[in-house]
Parts: sequence; C-alpha cells; structure tokens
Amino acid sequence: MRVVFSEHAGSLQPSAAGKILDTAADPNIISLAAGNPAPEALPADDVARIIAEEFQRDPIGVLQYSVPQGYLPLRAAVQEMLAARSGINRPEDDCIILSGAQQGGDLVARLLCNPGDVVLCEEPSFLGCLDAFRAAGARLIGIPVEQDGIDIQRLEEVLSGTQRIRFLYTIPNFQNPTGITMSLEKRQRLYELAVRYNIVILEDNPYGDLRFHGEDVPPIKSLDTTGHVLYMGSFSKILAPGLRVGYLVADREIIARLTTLKSACDVHTAILAQHICHRFITGRDMNAHLAALAALYRHKCELMLGEMDRLFDRRVSYTRPDGGLFLWCTLPEGLDGNLFAQRAAQAGVLVVPGSGFLTDTNQLSSCFRLNYSTPTDENIIRGIQILGELTRSL
Amino acid sequence: MRVVFSEHAGSLQPSAAGKILDTAADPNIISLAAGNPAPEALPADDVARIIAEEFQRDPIGVLQYSVPQGYLPLRAAVQEMLAARSGINRPEDDCIILSGAQQGGDLVARLLCNPGDVVLCEEPSFLGCLDAFRAAGARLIGIPVEQDGIDIQRLEEVLSGTQRIRFLYTIPNFQNPTGITMSLEKRQRLYELAVRYNIVILEDNPYGDLRFHGEDVPPIKSLDTTGHVLYMGSFSKILAPGLRVGYLVADREIIARLTTLKSACDVHTAILAQHICHRFITGRDMNAHLAALAALYRHKCELMLGEMDRLFDRRVSYTRPDGGLFLWCTLPEGLDGNLFAQRAAQAGVLVVPGSGFLTDTNQLSSCFRLNYSTPTDENIIRGIQILGELTRSL
Repeated sequence: MRVVFSEHAGSLQPSAAGKILDTAADPNIISLAAGNPAPEALPADDVARIIAEEFQRDPIGVLQYSVPQGYLPLRAAVQEMLAARSGINRPEDDCIILSGAQQGGDLVARLLCNPGDVVLCEEPSFLGCLDAFRAAGARLIGIPVEQDGIDIQRLEEVLSGTQRIRFLYTIPNFQNPTGITMSLEKRQRLYELAVRYNIVILEDNPYGDLRFHGEDVPPIKSLDTTGHVLYMGSFSKILAPGLRVGYLVADREIIARLTTLKSACDVHTAILAQHICHRFITGRDMNAHLAALAALYRHKCELMLGEMDRLFDRRVSYTRPDGGLFLWCTLPEGLDGNLFAQRAAQAGVLVVPGSGFLTDTNQLSSCFRLNYSTPTDENIIRGIQILGELTRSL
Repeated sequence: MRVVFSEHAGSLQPSAAGKILDTAADPNIISLAAGNPAPEALPADDVARIIAEEFQRDPIGVLQYSVPQGYLPLRAAVQEMLAARSGINRPEDDCIILSGAQQGGDLVARLLCNPGDVVLCEEPSFLGCLDAFRAAGARLIGIPVEQDGIDIQRLEEVLSGTQRIRFLYTIPNFQNPTGITMSLEKRQRLYELAVRYNIVILEDNPYGDLRFHGEDVPPIKSLDTTGHVLYMGSFSKILAPGLRVGYLVADREIIARLTTLKSACDVHTAILAQHICHRFITGRDMNAHLAALAALYRHKCELMLGEMDRLFDRRVSYTRPDGGLFLWCTLPEGLDGNLFAQRAAQAGVLVVPGSGFLTDTNQLSSCFRLNYSTPTDENIIRGIQILGELTRSL
C-alpha cells in the first residue's frame, strides 16, 4: 500500500525528547530528562479511597457517557478555586475540562489557526504544545525568554511587523524548559499588547501551584477584562498525570466552540478521572497539600543546584527556579547541547537537549534541560556528578 | 475582542443530535435518542474490585505518566483477542490505544487528509466521526446504505470518478444509525476496490460484539493482506463508555505516525482506565459476559420492535437489526424527520432526526433513529406508544 500523509498533522516528526525517553526504561540509566511528578508526590491512598467512595455513591455516573464540556461539579470547583487562589473571575468566562492541558494546545490551535497562520511562543518553549501547533499547520515564531520572562521589546516588533498572528503561547510560571517566571510588569505589558493588536494569549500554568521560593505573581488571566486570555491549568502536577485531566477557562463563546470541537475529538474526558479531581480539590486542605509538594520540590531543586554549584564547570550557567520541575543549563558559547546530551547518555545520564524546545528544532542550541522532580535524591547526586565531570571535560 | 475562527475545526456546528440531547436531562422526557449502554450492563462491582487490586499491585503505575501508544499489556491483550475472536492477525500490524474510538476518527482524518481531500462514508453514518472528518477539512461524499450494506455499484462509480479520495469510513456491523450489517460478499468487494483504487478503509466496529441474532460476519480487516484496512474497536459498549478507551489496529507505519500525532493531542489515554480494560478482558470469561449483554439487548430490541409492529402506522418502515443499539425508521415519502422529531419531543419522546447523519445535514431526511439500549422497558413501551400515535396522525 502507498499512503499519502497530510502536510501538517501527518508529517509531524517524533520529538528528539521522545527518542531519548525511549531509552529511559533501562534501570541503569539515570534520567534527568522526564517531567514526571515525584512518585512520593502521588497520593495513591487518597485516590483509591475516593474511587471506592464514588463507586458506592454513583456507580453508574462514574462509568456511563458524560457531557463534552466536562463534569459540572468539577467545572464549578475549578472556577471557585481559581477565583479564590488566583483572582481569576471574569463574569463572561466559562470552563471546559480537557483530557490533560496538552489537549488545550491542540484544540486552541485548531480552533484559531488555518494552515500558515502564525503562533507566537517563547523561545525555548514546551515541545508538546509546539508540536500541537505544528500539527495544526501553524507557523511558529519564537520570542526570546529573558531572566524576567518574554522579551517584550522583541515581541512588539514582531506584533507590529507580522500578518496573520492568531495567538501567543506563554508559560509564565517556572517555564518549561527554563524554569523562568515572568515579572508582573511584563505580564501587564503583554496583556496590553494583546489587546492593542487583538491577539489571543494562551496562558499555560501547569506548574504555578508548585512555588517553593518567593511570592505568587498574579496570572495574566487575572488582569483580563476583555476576554483576550485563554487560561489552562492541569491536575497532572498537583494530583496525578496518569488521570489526564486539565482545564481551560475563557470567554463563553470560545468555550462553546472548544466544546463542539472536543466532542468530535474524544467525546469527553474520562469521567471517573473527573470525579477523582473534583473530590480531591474539594475534599481536602489544598494549601497543606501544595505546601507539602513545594517542600518536596524545594528540597530536590536545592539538592541539584547545590551539587551543580560544587561540580559543574564554571563556564556552564544555569537558572535557579522559584518553583516547578525544571532548570535550564547553558554551555559555553559554540558548544552543542545535542552532542552534550549524547555524551551524557553514553555516560548513563539522560538530559533533554535544548534544540527540541526551539521553534526550529534543526537549529543548534548550546542548552539542555534538567528535571529534579522525578529522580531519587541518590540519582540526583550521582547524575550531577557524572554531568559535572562531562562539563569539566568540555 | 474579535476572534477569527479557523475555516474547518473552528467552524464546526453543534450537532442537531447534541441540541436534542441537551433536553434529555428532564426526567419527564423519554429519551430514545441516546447511544448509551444500558445502566444494568455496566459492571460496576467488577470495575471497583479491579481498581482496588490495581492500586494494591501498582499504585504508582496507575497514576504516573505513561507512553503515547498505550499500556503494553492492554495492546497485547487486544491483539490476542482480535486474533482469537475475529481472525485479525496480519503480522505487519500494530495497535494503538485511543481515548475512545472517536479519537481514531479524528486522528486518522488529520493523518490522511489535507483540507479539501475526500472522505467516503456510508449515507447515513455516525455523526460523531463525520464531524471529526469535517473538522479536518475533509469533503464528505456519501454512499447509500442498502439492506446488506454499502451500495457497491455506486461506490465504484464514485471511486472511478473522483480525485483526492483519502479513505472510506464504514461501520459494517449493526451500523449507526441504521442497524444494518454488511454482507460478507460486499466486504470482500469493498476490500478489493480499496486495493484496486489504493484507498484506506477505516473500519469502525464498536458494536460487533453485541450480536443477538445470526452468525458473526468476518471483519474486513480479517481479509486484509495489503495493509489497506485500519480497524477500530471500543470498550464503550462492552465495558463502560465513561472510561474513554478504544483502539486501532493497522500497519506499523500508520500506528507510528498516529502515535506521534496522539502524543501532541493528549499525550496518552488515561492510564487507570487502560489498566481496567486490560484486567477486564484478560481476567474474566468474555464469552459469558458478551452472551449476557446480547441477551439483554435482544430483549430490549424485540420489545421495541414488537410494540412498533403493533402501534406504528403501516406506512412507516424500519430496520430489524441483528445486534447493536439502534434501529432506523423511515416515514412515508415526503415527510420530514426533523419535524417528526420536534413533534415527538413536544409529546415527551426524544428521537434523533435522520438529517443529522447525512453528509449534508441541511438536506431533508424522512428518517429518524431509535435507541433501545438506554431506556427502561417501561419507557420503551411508553415511548413507542406515543410515537405510534404520532405516526398514525401523519
């Protein structure tokens, strides 16, 4: 059989990160390449108890078809949580439950973009959503990330000089892959620019609840009075990624169209998983739960940074995140992150090379991403020791 | 804010069926419009027990991130089940787990179609997948369904006279919405034509295990030696739709590309749901389970047909399915199924008007779909009584 694949969705390439992760099953390999919650952060006993109770309370409801927009009690609980914790409470907004926040990237790109339309994103940015935008046929334009977030001056140049921009994708808190947080001032400027140029902001905040240093910065969505901001959150990092539950809050018309499209994509998100998320966020002290997660990741991040400070060659620079799961290393200029990642893998440590997070993955990057949430303390220590030796041999 | 929505995915209209179902929450309304399994067919106790055991056995595995292609033991069990039950065992094939079979319609259309490419489908056909194809920008061409399945002569005319056909979508067993089953002879002819014209067949078989009269007809996929057939199945009708687990079996290259695309859409299917499906199909006597489902739906179908034979006006014709969940009624020529559905709703009974299942939903249809799996026996009797009166007043 000869099959002709479609130009965009049919021509997506497996990501470099994916190829590296394929080898992560080897137990002798130390993976600093994942983005998983720590195993000890997964509240298995609580979830098992909630499931048993929900099967008692509503045995048909947890197994039968449900509605595309999502389980109503969960939608209400998410909107209450966002209003109370983050000041997100625009009256014209509504909420849709997603099969993980990744689905939001896919649905929003398809809702807003015809092939050839432009999506702006931070450079580097989360490769999963970049792939979703590529699958929709979008043309990606990257805006560099500075120490306090997206380069606003460059953004304004691109906005004023580019046709067919449909939306801007940003991860303002503990960005993936850099770990950088956007300042409040830049969030305000970004929102003003979105209104002035009439483009949508897709604000992705999967890590915002995992802050372990400093004070929360208000989400861009909390500044939104015009409906330009689509806000995505996830239960993957605060509860469990295997459930595949996320959500998107936006203007009612956007939510209605996303719901119609989602209905054609997967009918609705697995309903038992939605019941679990609802019971979890309404039934327990979330502040205490999040404080425990923050303490765990603070410890792991500080352990990794302390070892890096001790063992990495001085010519290697890296970010010091205030939360989230990742930090971002930059090799001395001219060195290739792909080559470094290959040599690290040969030495038994997986890292994700920086080029995978670029809008053009064929470009060279002197960077690589490290994750501290997944490995054990012992593997953080051993992994950084091996990487440190590599940096000193450059 | 002014938002420009994309031409295809952003312009999808809420389906007529969806609008009718919105009113189905009213407990005074009798819905014969759904496609849900009977509540008594959902094995809640078994699923609750399986979940408790899986949380004991692998508490991290049921909550953590997993792989896009799906839980390996489930993929293996699905392929074993298909080989044993249906003769589907092409050595070059592989399997991907989907977030419900609906996701297969979405992913396959995006993988194979650029906007303007042609998808052939039965006319009428399952509106959920037709919407997925529309969202991908496909142009739909319908081929009439006859008493023994798709009109092969008309199909050959269309195949020989149409450019840019990418695939043909068919539901050969107890088709949605007609309840019609394609004969073995037509399956063989259809496969031969697909090979001759080099088009893919997307064979959707969600109802095949729900046969309550006659003998199984081999799936088209069991005839496939060339890789032209993509076969989809679902756990929605034999286990529970709320889990959102389906699967697709096809040539390895197709599965690899679908996996890359799925990864960008929702990362992977909810992993606990995959564990449940694996344990369910490997841990119990599936023949006995399916026989019990068949007995239940045989009873409900015969109850509905018996009441229709007694109470429907003779000028209304309808199919007599050998399995599945639906039957299909045709009003006397010239009468409008939409109008009939509206009048039925006013009288307290929901049916789905036929036009929703057409490639052009603005076309008139003198048909409507009835579902017998969801309503109670009492509601089947009351509902058909009300519809019968309506048919006699036409």
